[in-house]
Amino acid sequence: MITLAVDCMGGDHGPRVTLAACRQFLDNHPDARLLLVGLKDSLQSFSHERATVVPATEVVAMDDPVEIALRRKKDSSMRVAIQQVKDGTAAAAVSAGNTGALMAIARYILKTLDGIDRPAIATQMPNAQGGATTVLDLGANVDCSAEHLLQFAVMGSALVSVLKGVEEPTVGLLNIGEEIIKGSEVIKKAGELLRSAANSGDLNFYGNVEGNDIFKGTVDIVVCDGFVGNVALKASEGVASMVVGGLKQEFSRNILTKAAAIVAYPVLKALMNRMDYRRYNGAALLGLRGLVFKSHGSADTMAFEQALNRAYDAARNNLLDRVRTRIAHAAPLLAPGNAQPTPGAAATTY
Amino acid sequence: MITLAVDCMGGDHGPRVTLAACRQFLDNHPDARLLLVGLKDSLQSFSHERATVVPATEVVAMDDPVEIALRRKKDSSMRVAIQQVKDGTAAAAVSAGNTGALMAIARYILKTLDGIDRPAIATQMPNAQGGATTVLDLGANVDCSAEHLLQFAVMGSALVSVLKGVEEPTVGLLNIGEEIIKGSEVIKKAGELLRSAANSGDLNFYGNVEGNDIFKGTVDIVVCDGFVGNVALKASEGVASMVVGGLKQEFSRNILTKAAAIVAYPVLKALMNRMDYRRYNGAALLGLRGLVFKSHGSADTMAFEQALNRAYDAARNNLLDRVRTRIAHAAPLLAPGNAQPTPGAAATTY
Repeated sequence: MITLAVDCMGGDHGPRVTLAACRQFLDNHPDARLLLVGLKDSLQSFSHERATVVPATEVVAMDDPVEIALRRKKDSSMRVAIQQVKDGTAAAAVSAGNTGALMAIARYILKTLDGIDRPAIATQMPNAQGGATTVLDLGANVDCSAEHLLQFAVMGSALVSVLKGVEEPTVGLLNIGEEIIKGSEVIKKAGELLRSAANSGDLNFYGNVEGNDIFKGTVDIVVCDGFVGNVALKASEGVASMVVGGLKQEFSRNILTKAAAIVAYPVLKALMNRMDYRRYNGAALLGLRGLVFKSHGSADTMAFEQALNRAYDAARNNLLDRVRTRIAHAAPLLAPGNAQPTPGAAATTY
Repeated sequence: MITLAVDCMGGDHGPRVTLAACRQFLDNHPDARLLLVGLKDSLQSFSHERATVVPATEVVAMDDPVEIALRRKKDSSMRVAIQQVKDGTAAAAVSAGNTGALMAIARYILKTLDGIDRPAIATQMPNAQGGATTVLDLGANVDCSAEHLLQFAVMGSALVSVLKGVEEPTVGLLNIGEEIIKGSEVIKKAGELLRSAANSGDLNFYGNVEGNDIFKGTVDIVVCDGFVGNVALKASEGVASMVVGGLKQEFSRNILTKAAAIVAYPVLKALMNRMDYRRYNGAALLGLRGLVFKSHGSADTMAFEQALNRAYDAARNNLLDRVRTRIAHAAPLLAPGNAQPTPGAAATTY
């Protein structure tokens, strides 16, 4: 039996979406249990033999500053959900709430793994191979050092080996050219560390990749600092929205184009499904002593269920142990003192 | 009469594309003259009353290191074209060659304007408003200081006011959230400088924007360091390619989808035209004492002609004087000593 703790209050839609997703998830996973965390009044309507309500008296708002969420709302649904992981009553926590608050609370309650200075946010983006590319960091850390990027590569490799069953997933370093002389000093040094890690068998390092390689599917994992990753993710979402909006506009231009839309609909629908960001919802917070997954705040029921699925898969496949093992193996390269953590402002949304 | 110097040897296709584009450009601009720079043998077939061949004996290869291009090929078509601008025989130079080499040679020959530490590459990306968003820097500079970002904002404003006729174009600072507390120390300081510039009437500063705002068309100009801009540009190209590839794949799946493709073709074509990156070809190298435009290396005839059009518009509207005036006006904020130039590795392709 796999037990997940769900922050039912998080996200733009709250319990309306999270509870509907929880029901579907329970129906699809007979060996799963859910701890539904939130305001009693909001959750009392839900009843399922494998679900238990865990009351919390506060809710972290989407625009709460990290300090408020962390210091003033000690009985928030987000924090209580993460506490379940700390206490061992749940194998993973899932929230669609404020990313910055989630990261700060998770880090405060669970602490980071040995050898990890900073947790990272890893998500998947659809690629032209029909699969998805895992990208980290997505905004938890700005101003990363080369050592942080190496830590992200090691953690990302563990994540992908667990979620996709690829034993030695390929890692690319996001850069502005393929040549090793490209990029800032930090990126060049990160390239050196990643090559060392590849030589010692800790990583399957492909080399530098560029922004378009995320969507080509050139590598399984793309590593970058949180600022760059966040911009790349949002830029790509922006392009996708623009294309979808443009399609709608062009097809509704006149009676002829509307007729064309009816004919083309099944084909366009197939494409949309393939590239649907909702299918890839559920970002992993990696590097903590416990599993936490972040759903997009705007997730609908289908998308939030994907985040639950991802947390379930990670828990069932012992992601935490795998990350720990890989980190321990790469420890000589990650030696303390190599990395100087300087706290960066986390993104509210990833 | 506006005279442009064209490096006819640059780009993936060389004279086959550049000469065809030059002919179309001349046909469409009766008041333009072209100096066609390149190997004599490659250009001798071209004849037009408003075109003159300027011979060069060398060609910068797309993969030539900057040092080779700059120090060893002193009679390259790229360098001779830029020299025409320096000598005043051409109002602007256009090349589809190696970006790093073009920037280095342009900087060496033309020098930077007073108040500018580093030239930047500014390009346009299509947005959902049906227009284009100007983004800089696109890869000329990695590791920018806050002062560099301010310089980019001032130069970008001049460019857009000239090319689009918008007197006070809006400027957004690319960040990972809208709030002013977001981002790295450099970004936060850049935000302060941009607000100061707005207060003194030198800029129309909108505030922080995110990756998706480039494609929403939230602002006229998006400012970022070259690393981030390069990744955002290439990521967006990657998404666009993935969508186009996916459309082709889905529409060619079987006889029914092929029939749907025929019906939908005019509509899809209209969308493709609207979002065609070729229409926005022609990046400006800003901050130099002369006008230089960079075409994408893979440009076809239509795309290369767009780059020529852009150079022509910039020259006709005195872009250089406008940049100079704006820089002079913002000089107190750009005071020397504020910015410490540290040379970054330029991208080969932007």
